[in-house]
Amino acid sequence: MALRLSTSDAAFADAFDALVNARREADADVSADVAAIIKDVRSDGDEAVARLTQKFDGHDLEFTGWKVSVAECEAALDGLDPNLRIALELAAIRIRDYHEGQVPDNRDYRDDAGVRIGARWNAVERAGIYIPGGRAAYPSSVLMNAIPAKVAGADRVIMVTPTPGGEVNPLVLAAAQIAGVDEIWRIGGAQAVAALAFGTEKIAPVDVITGPGNAWVAEAKRQVYGVVGIDMVAGPSEIVVVADGQNDPDWIAADLLSQAEHDPTSQSILFTDDAAFADQVATQVEKQLGELATSKTATQSWIDNGAIILVDRLEQAMPLVDRLAAEHLELACDDPQALFNKVRHAGSVFLGRHTPEAVGDYVAGPNHVLPTGRRARFSSGLSVTDFMKRTSFLECDETALGKIGPAAVALAEAEGLPAHAASVQKRLDTRR
Amino acid sequence: MALRLSTSDAAFADAFDALVNARREADADVSADVAAIIKDVRSDGDEAVARLTQKFDGHDLEFTGWKVSVAECEAALDGLDPNLRIALELAAIRIRDYHEGQVPDNRDYRDDAGVRIGARWNAVERAGIYIPGGRAAYPSSVLMNAIPAKVAGADRVIMVTPTPGGEVNPLVLAAAQIAGVDEIWRIGGAQAVAALAFGTEKIAPVDVITGPGNAWVAEAKRQVYGVVGIDMVAGPSEIVVVADGQNDPDWIAADLLSQAEHDPTSQSILFTDDAAFADQVATQVEKQLGELATSKTATQSWIDNGAIILVDRLEQAMPLVDRLAAEHLELACDDPQALFNKVRHAGSVFLGRHTPEAVGDYVAGPNHVLPTGRRARFSSGLSVTDFMKRTSFLECDETALGKIGPAAVALAEAEGLPAHAASVQKRLDTRR
Repeated sequence: MALRLSTSDAAFADAFDALVNARREADADVSADVAAIIKDVRSDGDEAVARLTQKFDGHDLEFTGWKVSVAECEAALDGLDPNLRIALELAAIRIRDYHEGQVPDNRDYRDDAGVRIGARWNAVERAGIYIPGGRAAYPSSVLMNAIPAKVAGADRVIMVTPTPGGEVNPLVLAAAQIAGVDEIWRIGGAQAVAALAFGTEKIAPVDVITGPGNAWVAEAKRQVYGVVGIDMVAGPSEIVVVADGQNDPDWIAADLLSQAEHDPTSQSILFTDDAAFADQVATQVEKQLGELATSKTATQSWIDNGAIILVDRLEQAMPLVDRLAAEHLELACDDPQALFNKVRHAGSVFLGRHTPEAVGDYVAGPNHVLPTGRRARFSSGLSVTDFMKRTSFLECDETALGKIGPAAVALAEAEGLPAHAASVQKRLDTRR
Repeated sequence: MALRLSTSDAAFADAFDALVNARREADADVSADVAAIIKDVRSDGDEAVARLTQKFDGHDLEFTGWKVSVAECEAALDGLDPNLRIALELAAIRIRDYHEGQVPDNRDYRDDAGVRIGARWNAVERAGIYIPGGRAAYPSSVLMNAIPAKVAGADRVIMVTPTPGGEVNPLVLAAAQIAGVDEIWRIGGAQAVAALAFGTEKIAPVDVITGPGNAWVAEAKRQVYGVVGIDMVAGPSEIVVVADGQNDPDWIAADLLSQAEHDPTSQSILFTDDAAFADQVATQVEKQLGELATSKTATQSWIDNGAIILVDRLEQAMPLVDRLAAEHLELACDDPQALFNKVRHAGSVFLGRHTPEAVGDYVAGPNHVLPTGRRARFSSGLSVTDFMKRTSFLECDETALGKIGPAAVALAEAEGLPAHAASVQKRLDTRR
């Protein structure tokens, strides 16, 4: 069903180019709609938010309440299936541990010229996180966005999540409680992003907005970028698996489908050096598709975007893998490290036969918010530093300024900026 | 001429709010024009770039040449005033030294559950830097953008710079030569940003675009964000000086004017605890304005956006300083560290009486590309990591997956993602 290619095909280069450049992201232009919503929220504040929530989510905030109460979150956590609670808490601990190691060190040193130089990191004051409602209401997304903000040291983590018809998702509330989210608003869409960015009477503005969302949410984040910080715009999920013939085809088929089941626009690609194994995986994919509750989505994704690519040797796959710069990359072979050493562009890499990508989605520790659509060429997964910022600093005494000041004067004059030059020269003159 | 406030004024809170919220950035909506230019370059490639360069920069690329040759750069460097060359080379060395300390460490460890976890940093392949032509053609901008890209390890650093009428700025070429820029294109505006982001027949696409520019360039960067990485959208420059009465008012006046001379929309604000000193600085500003070659710009900036704010004690200024979250902050007093310890939001801080901000613009080492317009609340100066990205990785063996896998299965099932659960469960089942 999926595309089958081999590097020995005469037309391989063109076919692979087409695969790399295929645009899976929706081109629906919602920018004018989103701009109108943002303008509406900026001018009418809470009134606009309530009106738009009634229109898009079908409930009256005055009736359902604007915020989810702490009591509701506690009740959701208390009511959780005990196994699920243990799983969420294990995930939270492991995610926290990993992210604590991301907090950057400050710098503070004196160089040869006697100039004290450094950089100091501080957290943002208020972090806003967007959590989708409905089908894609994932407690794991709450943990992956809220915990880094908390570890960064944000004063408050403010969550927005649409509650269609007023219904909240208890798993999401339980995760928010475990992650230590400070407030939760029952709002979503571009109107929630606008409220977080600009503030309303009820909702104080935040400094950063992260989290997944539909096309309207993504476009709203783009439009408020610069007013607040945002995480990278995310596209459909994707996985590339590089596997030799010694793997269980049933496992590899499941790995491919674990991305395919996200969305019809998701993409799963297998590279293998074993033609018989390629056939076995294809057969297992068909078989599993017949059994999955998410079969409709996964089948569509596999037909439209899936691919199996035969290579002579796995090493030969690596430059191709780099061109795809995939969100997720599995290296299922005897010496995954040797292949990993050849990887330059990937969001997250899963080494060996016993590291299915899904373990990274939930409980391993690193963030599951990762660059998609070849953006791993230039961007990284969500991190603690997305909720922090760096302030550089300098301190000169007379001697140090005497050493480096004259060069600053020369450059300022050459750039036609005499007040810049004067601010240094006046201090140098006094020194003489 | 500038605004005068005192925290003891009855209306201070409102007046300060107005100062914080004053929008100095041009609201000119160039987004439709920019979108049209980008569309043009995407469809017509080099032909569009040449046509738009003729239109906006008034020269024919086929006649002037598309690229600046290495010979031209070498000639510019050789022809440089020797003092200026020494200054540029000192600046380059110091900037390189500071930025080398920003290269992040990789992580690679095994945790209690036996899971190998880590993160590996790699450079982008191609970095694009935009350097304005004409009035704001600053060699220091070349160093501040190109050197971090080089230190990051980018394979190629590609500079674009408009050459109105075909004229290049030899200082900019000399700086590019010193910084090791790999290629320079004589193009600018939104068309140059579009060419870098999407590529043309002549110009290969880049992965990141940084550098200052006018409203069209800034909007073009916003519109290609996601196709490539970009640095933060920059607004008018600004400085906040916190100074006691023991400073030379002549020095502090020069510091204020060093930002005012950039642009009429720039902003300079003095906080002091000494009313007589405030008057002396105001007098010195007037005096220096009469002497500056940049007087027209600086006067306009000082009248429109300048402010002198009297506080009881300098400590009282610090929460106000934090609200301004300024690009540049000078702390000119006996114990600047005590005040610095109270700063949470600022782009770069200059401590003591002998550290004028301008020294940081050129030769100190830290980057002069800094967040403006209160964006220091959530963003940082340009850094080596803007030209790098992080790939996280995981490696489980059977035992480690046995420990954390069941929690992943529970969460995947709760989220309604059965293929996620299966990819882990199949491996757990085989293990038993």
